[in-house]
Amino acid sequence: MAKNIKTEYNDLGLGTKTSSGSFRSLNKDGTFNVKKTNVRFFERFNFFHSLISMPWLNFFSLIFLGYFVANLIFASIFLIIGVEHLTGIDALSVSDKFIEAFFFSSQTITTLGYGRVAPMGILANTVAAIESMVGLLFFALATGLLYGRFSRPLGKIKYSSHAVLAPYQDINAFMFRVVNPRSSQLLEVEVNVSFSMKRENSELRDFYTLELERNKIVFFPYMWTIVHPINEASPLFKIKEAELLARNAEFIVMMKAFDESFSQTVYSRSSYNASEIKWGEKFVYLVKWEEEGVSVDVGKIDETEKVQLNK
Amino acid sequence: MAKNIKTEYNDLGLGTKTSSGSFRSLNKDGTFNVKKTNVRFFERFNFFHSLISMPWLNFFSLIFLGYFVANLIFASIFLIIGVEHLTGIDALSVSDKFIEAFFFSSQTITTLGYGRVAPMGILANTVAAIESMVGLLFFALATGLLYGRFSRPLGKIKYSSHAVLAPYQDINAFMFRVVNPRSSQLLEVEVNVSFSMKRENSELRDFYTLELERNKIVFFPYMWTIVHPINEASPLFKIKEAELLARNAEFIVMMKAFDESFSQTVYSRSSYNASEIKWGEKFVYLVKWEEEGVSVDVGKIDETEKVQLNK
Amino acid sequence: MAKNIKTEYNDLGLGTKTSSGSFRSLNKDGTFNVKKTNVRFFERFNFFHSLISMPWLNFFSLIFLGYFVANLIFASIFLIIGVEHLTGIDALSVSDKFIEAFFFSSQTITTLGYGRVAPMGILANTVAAIESMVGLLFFALATGLLYGRFSRPLGKIKYSSHAVLAPYQDINAFMFRVVNPRSSQLLEVEVNVSFSMKRENSELRDFYTLELERNKIVFFPYMWTIVHPINEASPLFKIKEAELLARNAEFIVMMKAFDESFSQTVYSRSSYNASEIKWGEKFVYLVKWEEEGVSVDVGKIDETEKVQLNK
Amino acid sequence: MAKNIKTEYNDLGLGTKTSSGSFRSLNKDGTFNVKKTNVRFFERFNFFHSLISMPWLNFFSLIFLGYFVANLIFASIFLIIGVEHLTGIDALSVSDKFIEAFFFSSQTITTLGYGRVAPMGILANTVAAIESMVGLLFFALATGLLYGRFSRPLGKIKYSSHAVLAPYQDINAFMFRVVNPRSSQLLEVEVNVSFSMKRENSELRDFYTLELERNKIVFFPYMWTIVHPINEASPLFKIKEAELLARNAEFIVMMKAFDESFSQTVYSRSSYNASEIKWGEKFVYLVKWEEEGVSVDVGKIDETEKVQLNK
Repeated sequence: MAKNIKTEYNDLGLGTKTSSGSFRSLNKDGTFNVKKTNVRFFERFNFFHSLISMPWLNFFSLIFLGYFVANLIFASIFLIIGVEHLTGIDALSVSDKFIEAFFFSSQTITTLGYGRVAPMGILANTVAAIESMVGLLFFALATGLLYGRFSRPLGKIKYSSHAVLAPYQDINAFMFRVVNPRSSQLLEVEVNVSFSMKRENSELRDFYTLELERNKIVFFPYMWTIVHPINEASPLFKIKEAELLARNAEFIVMMKAFDESFSQTVYSRSSYNASEIKWGEKFVYLVKWEEEGVSVDVGKIDETEKVQLNK
Repeated sequence: MAKNIKTEYNDLGLGTKTSSGSFRSLNKDGTFNVKKTNVRFFERFNFFHSLISMPWLNFFSLIFLGYFVANLIFASIFLIIGVEHLTGIDALSVSDKFIEAFFFSSQTITTLGYGRVAPMGILANTVAAIESMVGLLFFALATGLLYGRFSRPLGKIKYSSHAVLAPYQDINAFMFRVVNPRSSQLLEVEVNVSFSMKRENSELRDFYTLELERNKIVFFPYMWTIVHPINEASPLFKIKEAELLARNAEFIVMMKAFDESFSQTVYSRSSYNASEIKWGEKFVYLVKWEEEGVSVDVGKIDETEKVQLNK
Repeated sequence: MAKNIKTEYNDLGLGTKTSSGSFRSLNKDGTFNVKKTNVRFFERFNFFHSLISMPWLNFFSLIFLGYFVANLIFASIFLIIGVEHLTGIDALSVSDKFIEAFFFSSQTITTLGYGRVAPMGILANTVAAIESMVGLLFFALATGLLYGRFSRPLGKIKYSSHAVLAPYQDINAFMFRVVNPRSSQLLEVEVNVSFSMKRENSELRDFYTLELERNKIVFFPYMWTIVHPINEASPLFKIKEAELLARNAEFIVMMKAFDESFSQTVYSRSSYNASEIKWGEKFVYLVKWEEEGVSVDVGKIDETEKVQLNK
Repeated sequence: MAKNIKTEYNDLGLGTKTSSGSFRSLNKDGTFNVKKTNVRFFERFNFFHSLISMPWLNFFSLIFLGYFVANLIFASIFLIIGVEHLTGIDALSVSDKFIEAFFFSSQTITTLGYGRVAPMGILANTVAAIESMVGLLFFALATGLLYGRFSRPLGKIKYSSHAVLAPYQDINAFMFRVVNPRSSQLLEVEVNVSFSMKRENSELRDFYTLELERNKIVFFPYMWTIVHPINEASPLFKIKEAELLARNAEFIVMMKAFDESFSQTVYSRSSYNASEIKWGEKFVYLVKWEEEGVSVDVGKIDETEKVQLNK
């Protein structure tokens, strides 16, 4: 990781000139506040990404829709060929024929094949043979995506809603804390905190990587307080709350960990802007000692209390 | 990896004030001795994690139960629609009808589709079409999880039951050994040993990362003795056995390796507390030379013998 | 990564003696301009690689062909056994019998099994039992590959068509820019730029790794300008455009990133040769400030404008 | 990676006292020459590893055997229940009944379900319902393993059959070369070469990590010559061929790379013992310049020619 970097705005595009005090380039949920224009559709579009990350309801609706439409199409083909090439159908009206063809199609595309209705002759048989192959491929994609979604690590790290500026040894420090609410383990957790603010009398923003008391832990059983000591090397040295607000300061957090239950590396992002820092408060202790062992009250992650800052 | 770190208890939450001599924050099997409270169910619960890590018997029971319940539900639906919409059923009593509907449902959900019983009409056909789709999705999850469980690397490294404190060159060292009992290879094995004990006259614990003679090996064909030389920089320097016990010392081990048969990175954890260290013993030699090659008696991993410690 | 390396041609084989000014060892699309001879077929051939990277049309054609040929083979076997061992066939001519056997085979290999035609007797039943097992295995491979292709990260990073030689602080720099046109995130992006040119009065080429202003970024929301400052340590120091052309200079770029939607590491390669560098031009600004946030005109990635170079 | 390490035999167990000049702890194919005893079966046995790495013939035989045996078992169960509970069977002898039951079972376990034979009544239906579920799970494992085997990266790097001791600048160097015979790319290739030999007048072996001219390359388009310069820091400094032979020297090579077609990290191992080093020979040039581009004669990887060593 590069050392503190001070660079102009157009480098990474993280930042902007803006008058609002609630500016942020990275949203709380880890998405970026950026709009790309003039990207051709096929360059931008990532079919897999869309299908793996859309809400579950949309995903199931899409599968159901695909199944329904495929059956409509194949039913139409069987109707055009003539349902007299399907045994066991004694429907007379076109709509009844279509319904029979539709359900025969559904029995074919899922390879169910009851056989009450069955194809006769080259045409109907060919369509059925193709449909069953299409069905195998279609459901392979659908079920592959289903399992892919299900087995996708999401890095559900929970961030404290606010950061604090609290005393630390004989100086002060910028701190926030994170919790692993899951029972599964996160290992070799790394954190990277970037800081940016508008340059004085300029539209440009400067970016810094903050030095942390510790940027990697081997285990992350439930909680970690991330600490940036504000010493002389810090870009926050001697800075005042009003200045952070005026210069639209933003703290961007990225965490990386190995998720043991998924056997994969996961990433998590969040951000704090100037208005989400509590000056002169410290986080409340979460841990209780009990007979049976340690007990951590995760619900109190956001609780802070007043404290006197060092000068 | 950070250098020796000396930090207060509330940093990682690994540790506690406790009076018992057998205190441990990390259990022998790699799980943490911590209870989280006030975590909302959906934050804590990891459906995939539960299904991939539960015992095999529970897993199969759950699949069977899901299959059974799904058939109960669909059989009820067919019964409500009326089994007269299923061909080939000549049952008269409700229970017989339900049984026929139940087995027809099982033939539909697995896409077996014998066809002795088959749906007639829009309602029954629609339910059957939906059930076969549901079946494909359900079994995709079930079989995906089955294979996921089967192909999951578990990092079965075997630790010696005790650590020893034995002479090493002209000083002493803290040592334990690990064995790879499998025939598959572990590569680029890294080890990290943390040490913690209660601060004197305090409820707080200090944490240290122990410097090892070697913390990475390229190959791990069968055995590795991990050695922490107790030199002046060691937090164990001049410490006595009684003090380790009194201050609830704990050694936490994490190993990381690339498992060649699974093509994945695996992690393994264990711990030794003060009562699991044999002072003045050394590990017995496991290797024998034979005409055909090297032979290693893995069964003797825990065997130690008395030895005179250096001053 | 090694420091600047100056090494003879035969080391990596990236380079050659050639008279053409448009020489390149690495093509724009990331493939190498190299032909291997005397490689035995089974050493060279990578069945999985071919199937996972061939065009979609070829892939589907191959699956369809496999399905068709398998049915031809099994139909022939049923014909040899005698279609009288298949119930429900009343065809008289050999061609009609073959057609019936063909479609029966297709219903068996997909485990469709309508049952209008069904095997009777040991021989036909044995063939059908084997065919259904073969079908399950064949379609498992086909659908596994289908999903594998679909879920394969491709690292679609878009490179500016030209690099530029532009002023940078009080010196000049070699620059190009890259864009992530996708909506999905790339994280921890690393770049490595190699430079090679023919040695003066020699057929050999020298290789260098260029020092970059920054070779890693944590986020890559949409654009990154990669900058090699031409200071005294640079192999490009005081070099002239004509010399780069005459000595067949080539810049080889490799990027590496973690693709969040695929949860995998992806690589991307490209190259610039001497004729693809615009001297005395700089890249046009892509970012616009709007009320709703930042807007980036990705379509302008290649746009440059004249600028005065530093001496 | 640790610096040159000099350590006693029992550390990694790579080495032994032996009188034969062809001693090796790591075989040419990357397997270790070590036998473990007293490992409990379930600790040692890795079911997944066995199934994923056994020869293809064994794998298919095992699947076929599983399919066959499962059908035998279920056929027996149907026979015990009584084939009169299966419609469509008019066999009279027990063997004929068993054959019918066997093939009905095969149609059930694959979810083929022609329906010519179909279960009647609770018992037969229950067995069929269970069998179809078992079949779905069994074939999920079988086909998952099939695809897992197929998509498994194998790191097919080809090593020169001999290493050479050749002049290098004004000293000599230990060299061998490797080839990527595949059309797929290997990226970020790292190499680690360990050297071990028996200590003089001792049964113990010393281990060293050799310093290489370069231990990582970004691209590996076809060939790489790995060079260990024998300078004063090298354990090979001033050593003679006879001494290497007498002290059973062994060079152990591990390579690591990212295989682009499999999107996975792959490892490869090999070794050279003292008798596989050609002193005073150098590798023959493989590259030819042709009008269309570079051509590499991979077949000549093992070709060397006499050369005068430096003193």
